[in-house]
Amino acid sequence: MKAVILLSGGLDSTTVLYQAKSEGCECYAISFDYQQRHRRELESATTLAHSVGVEHQLISFDLRVLGGSALTDISIDLPDVSAAPPAEVRSLAQMSQIPVTYVPARNTIFLSFALAYAETISAERVYIGVNALDYSGYPDCRPDYIQAMQEVFRLGTKQGREGQAIAIVAPLINLKKTEIIQLGNKLGVPWEKTWSCYAGLDLACGVCDSCRLRLQAFAELGIKDPLTYAE
Amino acid sequence: MKAVILLSGGLDSTTVLYQAKSEGCECYAISFDYQQRHRRELESATTLAHSVGVEHQLISFDLRVLGGSALTDISIDLPDVSAAPPAEVRSLAQMSQIPVTYVPARNTIFLSFALAYAETISAERVYIGVNALDYSGYPDCRPDYIQAMQEVFRLGTKQGREGQAIAIVAPLINLKKTEIIQLGNKLGVPWEKTWSCYAGLDLACGVCDSCRLRLQAFAELGIKDPLTYAE
Repeated sequence: MKAVILLSGGLDSTTVLYQAKSEGCECYAISFDYQQRHRRELESATTLAHSVGVEHQLISFDLRVLGGSALTDISIDLPDVSAAPPAEVRSLAQMSQIPVTYVPARNTIFLSFALAYAETISAERVYIGVNALDYSGYPDCRPDYIQAMQEVFRLGTKQGREGQAIAIVAPLINLKKTEIIQLGNKLGVPWEKTWSCYAGLDLACGVCDSCRLRLQAFAELGIKDPLTYAE
Repeated sequence: MKAVILLSGGLDSTTVLYQAKSEGCECYAISFDYQQRHRRELESATTLAHSVGVEHQLISFDLRVLGGSALTDISIDLPDVSAAPPAEVRSLAQMSQIPVTYVPARNTIFLSFALAYAETISAERVYIGVNALDYSGYPDCRPDYIQAMQEVFRLGTKQGREGQAIAIVAPLINLKKTEIIQLGNKLGVPWEKTWSCYAGLDLACGVCDSCRLRLQAFAELGIKDPLTYAE
């Protein structure tokens, strides 16, 4: 069965790619160059897609003209994590706030392009590595949102109207980061080729929210993250 | 109230822009360069937005890499309308078939970007000129599809989760083309600045599905379409 995989090159989406492969899917990866700060992840996505031997489409557009996020608008500062309390002592209330790294409608845009790609190649599934637990702050990473997009997949396409709707598969949605890493380890994900850092430098910074979440999960499991960090 | 208007430069979306203006909205137009054949419509959109004095964002991406439509894939022929029966004698069954000019997930992609733009500028509405009657063949022009996208607008954004969801307004959805032209006439839409033709030539061809639908509606109303046609 053909499947489109939303591949950012990060830990989660790479695990999803390996999961889809392990389920026997013929995978078609799709990545987005939206002029994000952390463009290094696109190289990871390309490297990973190539190493696994799957088709890879890169869609480019410029979200900077719309602004609104610290990930695309350089006038908005990234969170000053050095001044923030450690992630493990941040309260649930703080964790559930929508962070400045939220990009308005990002997953909706990504899923829309994935839907177009899937319908064009007659794929049956679209895999996305959203996670409702560790990214509870993002509205477009939650199960009810995915369900709403599934209705759009059903009603907004020829394939959904005339036959079986393309299914959104979100295998990580209820997993903790540690569980994702355990799953990825079973699947043989090459963590050193994945990229999570938001800072946009040559080496992962190790201190942004995304690096911290990743490092903390590896530490909890007593596994060394094989990625090289700046500090 | 701020409103984002999906403006293709065609008859329908231009009428919608004038409708939103007449309702007192502060309008922000958004158009898409998706390497469509009929790029002339983008000039119309720019001219129209400028003449009305509204902000105008152009988002560019390349849907040709995904293929799948006669509007973006030059290997798929546009319908040979000269060989087809006149539109007025085409059966309902023929009209309800999904045409080759259908672009997979196009309105979903457009609405996703409009949603991102609307959330970024704190707009309350997104206007779209979809029409379920004359474009019954397109799955993403029907009321149930718009309702599904409305749920995505509610659940997929910070604004929708924390306050009032951005509303999708589709004022033309149940109008016939003749009714749209009557509405546009009342609103003072400059038809000669709008562009409907799919063929991508300097002058509107007058024979593609889109031109025929337009010309037929003007003819039914006994009004001359002020746009210049090739023949």
